[in-house]
Amino acid sequence: MNSLPDLNVGLVGCGTVGSGVVQILRAHRDLLSIRAGCNLNLRRVVVRDLQKTREICAGDVEFTNDVSSIVNDASIAVVILVMGGIEPAHQYMRQCLDAGKDIITANKALLYQHGPALFQRAGHSGRTICFEAAVAGGIPIISAVTQALTANRIVSIEAILNGTSNFILTRMLDGRQPYEDVLREAQALGYAEADPSMDVDGTDAAQKLSILTQLAFGTRVTLENIVQQGIRQLELLDLQAAAELGYRIKLLATSRLARDRLEVSVQPTLVRADRAVAQTSGPDNIVAIVGDSVGLIRLSGAGAGRMPTASAVIADLVDYATGRAAITFRSVLRMQALPELPLQPREDLSRRYYLRFTVADRPHVLADIADILGRHEISISSVRQDETPDDVDEQEGVARLVIMTHRTTEGRLQAADAEIALLPSIRGVSIRLPVAD
Amino acid sequence: MNSLPDLNVGLVGCGTVGSGVVQILRAHRDLLSIRAGCNLNLRRVVVRDLQKTREICAGDVEFTNDVSSIVNDASIAVVILVMGGIEPAHQYMRQCLDAGKDIITANKALLYQHGPALFQRAGHSGRTICFEAAVAGGIPIISAVTQALTANRIVSIEAILNGTSNFILTRMLDGRQPYEDVLREAQALGYAEADPSMDVDGTDAAQKLSILTQLAFGTRVTLENIVQQGIRQLELLDLQAAAELGYRIKLLATSRLARDRLEVSVQPTLVRADRAVAQTSGPDNIVAIVGDSVGLIRLSGAGAGRMPTASAVIADLVDYATGRAAITFRSVLRMQALPELPLQPREDLSRRYYLRFTVADRPHVLADIADILGRHEISISSVRQDETPDDVDEQEGVARLVIMTHRTTEGRLQAADAEIALLPSIRGVSIRLPVAD
Repeated sequence: MNSLPDLNVGLVGCGTVGSGVVQILRAHRDLLSIRAGCNLNLRRVVVRDLQKTREICAGDVEFTNDVSSIVNDASIAVVILVMGGIEPAHQYMRQCLDAGKDIITANKALLYQHGPALFQRAGHSGRTICFEAAVAGGIPIISAVTQALTANRIVSIEAILNGTSNFILTRMLDGRQPYEDVLREAQALGYAEADPSMDVDGTDAAQKLSILTQLAFGTRVTLENIVQQGIRQLELLDLQAAAELGYRIKLLATSRLARDRLEVSVQPTLVRADRAVAQTSGPDNIVAIVGDSVGLIRLSGAGAGRMPTASAVIADLVDYATGRAAITFRSVLRMQALPELPLQPREDLSRRYYLRFTVADRPHVLADIADILGRHEISISSVRQDETPDDVDEQEGVARLVIMTHRTTEGRLQAADAEIALLPSIRGVSIRLPVAD
Repeated sequence: MNSLPDLNVGLVGCGTVGSGVVQILRAHRDLLSIRAGCNLNLRRVVVRDLQKTREICAGDVEFTNDVSSIVNDASIAVVILVMGGIEPAHQYMRQCLDAGKDIITANKALLYQHGPALFQRAGHSGRTICFEAAVAGGIPIISAVTQALTANRIVSIEAILNGTSNFILTRMLDGRQPYEDVLREAQALGYAEADPSMDVDGTDAAQKLSILTQLAFGTRVTLENIVQQGIRQLELLDLQAAAELGYRIKLLATSRLARDRLEVSVQPTLVRADRAVAQTSGPDNIVAIVGDSVGLIRLSGAGAGRMPTASAVIADLVDYATGRAAITFRSVLRMQALPELPLQPREDLSRRYYLRFTVADRPHVLADIADILGRHEISISSVRQDETPDDVDEQEGVARLVIMTHRTTEGRLQAADAEIALLPSIRGVSIRLPVAD
């Protein structure tokens, strides 16, 4: 043993991320001691099912299914909370905070839901909450926003924050496969859960974007205020049509200042193919931030997974052990006292758009749609009509019509959409996607 | 005024970066106070020439050409040293440290040259040196290596650290222009200095890589131990030949662990065109790091320039004001106590290679070269012979021969090169570039 002081650590949750945490603590014990300036001793691990054989069971770590054995252990200073879901994680975190313990967590759903109250609770009692692992896994985006970019007023964040949907979109285009087939593949590979809704509907990305937006813009946005659109409706032909136009479709999480208002959205978005965000493929994440001094910087890498997420958790633990984390958390709390920015009303969001209609293959359809767009002052930039696909109703030919607009507002398009939907020649679902600047 | 405490700051050097620092301190005074938890008061600025009209002159800042007015001002706690060159910057930094002041610097040449001694000096007297701005400008790579990746044993760093040469290589290929023309353009745009040697010879990148390598691998490498090759010898036809083979040529700074030895090089390197490093264009920088837990993460953005570099300086100042910087610096000093890694001898570097020969257009030339390579156990992966270019000596046809090898060692190639150079059919300079994995 060395002469360094000990820091006793509790771990709540020992699934994918938790077992990665244990693994790193063991593999890099000496290195971490030097970096942290103390010995990081994992004392207790709370798991749901004690019967499960765990390869990581070993040594002086006590496994328990009773969180109170951590809460009541005065020798444990900091608790790593890496179980998923809201309850009982929420209750456990409050119990730990109230018992005077600091927290390191990767639970973004919990932070999204109860972050402001938990931060306040921690702030009042002088406790610290670390959460680098909650957003974009191994990519150090929380420290970038809270520390590296402090000289900047943040202008925009554009990010791919959900690896599952990015994997699906990448594979659909590369493998020319429909959504359902790729989803099954993603589930087989462990990239998608049995119920993929949170990922493919954009909720997971929206929760992460809400946390980032709070830090970057000092403004809390809830899911109700985030323009959210998932990827389920996308067809392979949309990805292909976008590619032919020089774009990739990405589930883009965006927070940006526009005319002193904050625009926050998570939507499948056309991104120019030569941009780094468009080239982020498979389960990777990327965050592109523009600051008024630094300009554009990008961070990318694995946004999820056992070891990348555990890497972020352990970075937080070292930060905590050295005393840096407590300082950063005070600074985050100070920033929350700033006045919030007004949100851009959804109908005033101003972007270019990709519109795809499935229409009966008869005369005057394009004229009808163009007429409606024109009356709503939506200017068309380009039009292409795909050949009739193979899988159509034999009774009637249908065509796919793709229209790219010039810059216009969500409000105008909503009004136009309502009229277009009433046209007798419209078949099936129409798709409307924004185009990134 | 608010009720926050004051932190008095001195600035040495008020050129490009220094004036950006002053600008940010003024523009974001209130925001920075909240983030730093104190008022950041710029008290004195040391400049070389007091007669120069400075647009930033204003208010309560005192301009002087005498560094002792900062050294002897006990109210100044921290000095931002952003003048270039080794002397008198080195002397100024020692005077400031000895007077009990902490340092924030962007001077990478100084850190490369005297960093170990300066760090030791600061460590002994309890002082702190911050240097985020010294490597890759606005990209927070120093904090990534010293804080975000602490859970990792770093496996490799691949980076573009010199914006000037990256601009030149990008423009040569995109504009089909020779090196000399693009260099003049870069000088006109302010991307290259009148004497561009440090940038185009790889010295600037090698100094930055040395600083990163020290932090990431705990090992000091000097320029003598870095395999260094500049971009001056490259011809447009090399960039074009590489592009046709699916690569871009980048001045790649690489530190990597290979068989428990450290390989450190700065060389024009063929990088597969679909990789983010290859797509980093113009004056941008990128750093791709592989850690044993986090996998591959990338950070990219503006690696130089007034505001991005000033952004990093101010981030350090906020870090310093909060107390984080002192903690990080102690951790950096602790890591320096670890044993250094052995360096891979240059001749044992194992890579694939791009070889380009200019040869007399006569029979048996390829056979002669292939024979020499074969005798040195260098296996050829592909060969292409370009058409005779227009600008050749009319007396004799010459051809450009491009050979891609399979993996081999630098030592074997050096031996083969020596023999090939003696072939009577060889004309002009031969080029040998590594290919990134």
